[in-house]
Amino acid sequence: MKKYDVIVVGGGPAGGAVAAPLAEAGRRVMLIEARAFGGVCPLSGCNPKKALMSGAEAVRAASAMLGSGLSGRVSVDWADLMRFKQSFVDPVPAKARKAYGDKGIDTRIGSARLVGPHEVAVDGESFSAPHICLCVGQKPSPLPVPGGEGMPVSDDFLSLKTLPRRIIFIGGGFIAFEFAHIARQAGAEVTLLNRSDRVLRQFDPVLTQELVEASRAAGIDVRLNAPVQGVEQTASGYRIICGERGETALKADMAFNCTGRTAAIDGLGLDAAGVEYGQDGIAVNSRMQSVSNPDIYAVGDVADQGPALTPVATIQGQVAAANILHPNSAQVDYTGIPGVCFTLPPLAGAGLLESDAKQLGLDFTVRETDLAGSFSWKRLNERFGKARILIDEPGDRILGAHILGHNAEEIINLFALVIRQEIPLSRVKETVWAYPTCGYELKYML
Amino acid sequence: MKKYDVIVVGGGPAGGAVAAPLAEAGRRVMLIEARAFGGVCPLSGCNPKKALMSGAEAVRAASAMLGSGLSGRVSVDWADLMRFKQSFVDPVPAKARKAYGDKGIDTRIGSARLVGPHEVAVDGESFSAPHICLCVGQKPSPLPVPGGEGMPVSDDFLSLKTLPRRIIFIGGGFIAFEFAHIARQAGAEVTLLNRSDRVLRQFDPVLTQELVEASRAAGIDVRLNAPVQGVEQTASGYRIICGERGETALKADMAFNCTGRTAAIDGLGLDAAGVEYGQDGIAVNSRMQSVSNPDIYAVGDVADQGPALTPVATIQGQVAAANILHPNSAQVDYTGIPGVCFTLPPLAGAGLLESDAKQLGLDFTVRETDLAGSFSWKRLNERFGKARILIDEPGDRILGAHILGHNAEEIINLFALVIRQEIPLSRVKETVWAYPTCGYELKYML
Ligand SMILES: Cc1cc2nc3c(=O)[nH]c(=O)nc-3n(C[C@H](O)[C@H](O)[C@H](O)COP(=O)(O)OP(=O)(O)OC[C@H]3O[C@@H](n4cnc5c(N)ncnc54)[C@H](O)[C@@H]3O)c2cc1C
Ligand SMILES: Cc1cc2nc3c(=O)[nH]c(=O)nc-3n(C[C@H](O)[C@H](O)[C@H](O)COP(=O)(O)OP(=O)(O)OC[C@H]3O[C@@H](n4cnc5c(N)ncnc54)[C@H](O)[C@@H]3O)c2cc1C
Repeated sequence: MKKYDVIVVGGGPAGGAVAAPLAEAGRRVMLIEARAFGGVCPLSGCNPKKALMSGAEAVRAASAMLGSGLSGRVSVDWADLMRFKQSFVDPVPAKARKAYGDKGIDTRIGSARLVGPHEVAVDGESFSAPHICLCVGQKPSPLPVPGGEGMPVSDDFLSLKTLPRRIIFIGGGFIAFEFAHIARQAGAEVTLLNRSDRVLRQFDPVLTQELVEASRAAGIDVRLNAPVQGVEQTASGYRIICGERGETALKADMAFNCTGRTAAIDGLGLDAAGVEYGQDGIAVNSRMQSVSNPDIYAVGDVADQGPALTPVATIQGQVAAANILHPNSAQVDYTGIPGVCFTLPPLAGAGLLESDAKQLGLDFTVRETDLAGSFSWKRLNERFGKARILIDEPGDRILGAHILGHNAEEIINLFALVIRQEIPLSRVKETVWAYPTCGYELKYML
Repeated sequence: MKKYDVIVVGGGPAGGAVAAPLAEAGRRVMLIEARAFGGVCPLSGCNPKKALMSGAEAVRAASAMLGSGLSGRVSVDWADLMRFKQSFVDPVPAKARKAYGDKGIDTRIGSARLVGPHEVAVDGESFSAPHICLCVGQKPSPLPVPGGEGMPVSDDFLSLKTLPRRIIFIGGGFIAFEFAHIARQAGAEVTLLNRSDRVLRQFDPVLTQELVEASRAAGIDVRLNAPVQGVEQTASGYRIICGERGETALKADMAFNCTGRTAAIDGLGLDAAGVEYGQDGIAVNSRMQSVSNPDIYAVGDVADQGPALTPVATIQGQVAAANILHPNSAQVDYTGIPGVCFTLPPLAGAGLLESDAKQLGLDFTVRETDLAGSFSWKRLNERFGKARILIDEPGDRILGAHILGHNAEEIINLFALVIRQEIPLSRVKETVWAYPTCGYELKYML
C-alpha cells in the first residue's frame, strides 16, 4: 500500500487549494479526481456560465440602446455560443492535471472511497496517509416529487446543443436565476418556479424582490409560491404540475431542476473513517477539520461551513493546508466575503444582511439609494438598480452592502475590502471616486 | 451696490461645490454664470461624452462577440444617439439654477468681471463681497498654426448633427482619444494626430502605448510624431498638414482641435483685483486661495493646481468653502485621486506614476499583469488589458495603480480607496474577491 503525507480527494478548486501549498512545502501529496481535474467551477459552474452570459449581456446591452442611438439587431446563436463556452472548458482538465504534476503532486483518475481513518481505495488499489482531505464538492439535489428523479440539471443546461423554445427552471437560487436570464436573452420563453415567495435567500430581500421585477420586465415568467408537485415527460417535452394544491400545469420543451445542491458524499465511505456529516455536508470546525476525526479535513462545497463558492473553497483549502503543516495555526474568516448572482442586472452582497444585524442586536441604519435614476445607469437605459448599505454611524463602520444593478459585481469587491478590513466609514466617505463611473455613486450610497 | 458674503463666479461643478456649503452655513451667496448653470461636465464634458459612449460600448461589445455566440449587427444611429445624449443635457441648466435658488443662493446669468479686489461687475451692475471665488473653468486652447484659429473643438463634436465620414482629431489627450473611439464605433474613418510619440501624459506610458495599439486594432489611425503645421478648409472639409516638416497632407470631412484646454480668464479682470496667474491658470495655495490676494479663491479647472476633473473641482470647492467659513481650516489632499480615459477599453490610474516614484527615490517594484489572458476579459473577446501596480513590499504599501482594460474605470475606484487611505498591501491581499469578476484579478495584480 503506497504511503503519502496527504491524500486529497477531489480535484476541484478546493482540492487544488489544499494540494498546492502542501506540495510546495515538500509534502508528498496524492490528488484523486473521479472525473476531470478542475472541478465544477471551470468545467460546469462559474466559467461556462459566465461565458454564456457574455452573449446574453451583449444582446441585452444592445437591445437596451435600440432607439436611443442604436439600430439593427443582434441575437444569440446558441450553437456558436456553446462552442465559445466550450473553448474555455476543453483545455482545463489536461492543463490542471499537468500543473499538479509540475508541482510534484501525484494525480490519479478514479472514484475514491475511505476504507479506514487513514486509508483510501481507488479502483481496487489502496493508499494511506496520516492526513486525508475530502474535497468532493456537491451534486444537484434530487427533486423529491413524482417524476422528479433523473430530471435535467445544471450540467445539462450548460451542454444543451440547441436552445429549446420554452424552458422551465425549477428553483429560486442563483443558478436558476442566472440560467433564466441567459436563456431569455438567447430567445427562449422562460418560466422560473419558486416554492415560496422568497428567492435567493442569501441576498437582501428588498433587492431580490426588485430582481424578480427586473426578471419579469426582461420577459421571464417568475412564479412565486409555486411549489412543484409533479413532473411528467410528454412526447414533446415536459409537463410540470405546481401550486400549493397542484392546481397549475405548465408545458415546456425542456425543464431543469435547479432546486439546490447537496454534498457529494454517497459512497465516500465516511462511516469507515468515523467522519460525521449532516444535511449541509461534512461537519467541520473552523480549522476545516472533521469534528469527529481530526486527521481528516473537508474543504469546499462538501464542508458544512461557509457559502458554496469558489473563493471560499480557496481560502478554506489554504487554511486546511496550513493546519496540516502547522497544527492549529489557521482558521477561516468569513467576514465580508462577497456573493454575486450574475443576472441582468447582477445582484451582489457582502457582510451582514439586515436580519443578521438585527439578530446580533447591532445599532445600525439602512441607507437605501436608487441607482436606476443615476446617470451611470440611465445612460445605459438600465431600469433597475438599488443599493442598501448597513451603516453603524456612531461606530464608524459599514456592516453590510447589498447592490442590485449593472456593475454591482465589481462594486461589491470594494465593499468586500471595506467590510473585511473594517475600514472606517469616514475614510471611505473621504475618498475621491472617478467620474462618471458606477462606483462614483458610493458618494451617495454612504 | 449690492453686498454679499461671497460672490462665486462660474456655475459649474466648482462653483456649485463652493456655493452650496456656504449657503447652508447661512452665508449670503451670489452665483454668477455666463452661459448655463451646470458647467462643462454635465453640458459639454463628462456626461454628454459618456452618453455617446453608451452607443459605442454596445456596438463594440456586440461586434466583439460576433461569431462567438452572436449574430446580426447593430450600428450607431448618430442622430438618435445625439437625441439620447441631449435628453441628459437639456434639463440641467434650469434644474441646477432652481436647486441653487432652493438653497437660498442668488443666481444671475451674465459674464462677470472683477473691477476691484472685492467687487464684481455684470452687465453694468456691480456687487461686492469680502470673499470672491473664481470658478470659471477652462476653454479649448487655440491651435497656433496657420488656419488653426476657429477650428471646431469638443463642443462642436458633441453637437454634430450628422457624423462625418472621415474625421481627424488633433491632440493626444483624453478628449481626443475618447472622441476617436466614439466616432470610430459610430462608423467614421478616424485619424488621431499626436505631436510627439507620447500620448496621455498623465497615464502610465506602458499602458498608453498599449492603448495606442488597441486604438489601432479598433481601426483608428493613430499617428504619433505628427505635429500639425497648418489647417486648410476645402470645399468638402479639411486638409491638415502635419509631420516635422509638414510632409504629410491628410484630408477629412471634419477636423477637431483637441490639443488642450486653458484657463478661461480672458476679460475676467484679474489684474484689477491683484490676482496672479500663469500658464496653468490662477495661482493658488493648498487652501485654494489666490497667492497674491487671500480674499480671492480660485477653484476647479481654472486653478493652477490638481488635475482638471470634476471630482477635483468638488473637493477643491469644499476646501475653499471651509476656509472661507473658518480661515486656514482645510487643505486639498490629492492623494490617490483616480483618473480615467474612457476609451474602449478604458485606461485608468491612481496614485504615483513609475516616474514620480523614481523621482521621489522610493523603494518599489512594478507588478505587471496581463489581463487580456484572464478569463474575465477573454470571455468578452477583449484583446487588450494590462495592469501595472507600484508596490512598496517592505513598506506594505501600494503606491500607484494603472490599469488598461474593460472595467478598469470601476476597479480604479478600489485602488483610489486603498491609495488615499493607505490601506496596507497585506490587508488588500488578504481580501476575498467575488468570482468571476474583473476585480477578482486583484488576486494576481498584487
Ligand atoms: C452552475 C453553477 C454555477 C456556479 N457559479 C459560481 C460562481 O459564479 N461563482 C462562484 O464562486 N461559485 C460558483 N459556483 C460554485 C462553485 O462551482 C463551487 O463552489 C466550487 O466549484 C467548489 O469547489 P470544490 O472543489 O469544493 O467542489 P467541486 O468543484 O465540485 O469539485 C469536486 C471534485 O471532486 C470530484 N469528486 C467527487 N467525488 C469524488 C470521489 N469520490 N473521488 C474522487 N473525486 C471525487 C468531482 O469530480 C469534482 O471534480 C457555481 C456552481 C454551479 C453548479
Ligand atoms: C469633453 C470633455 C470631457 C470631460 N470628461 C470628464 C470626465 O469624464 N471626468 C471628469 O472628471 N472630468 C471630465 N472633464 C472635465 C470636467 O468637465 C471639468 O473638470 C469640470 O467641468 C470643471 O468644473 P469647473 O466648475 O471648474 O469648470 P466648468 O465646468 O468649465 O464651469 C465653469 C463655468 O464658469 C462659467 N464662466 C466662465 N467665465 C465666466 C465669467 N466670466 N462669468 C461668469 N461665468 C463664467 C462657464 O460658463 C462655466 O459654466 C471633461 C471636460 C471636457 C471638455
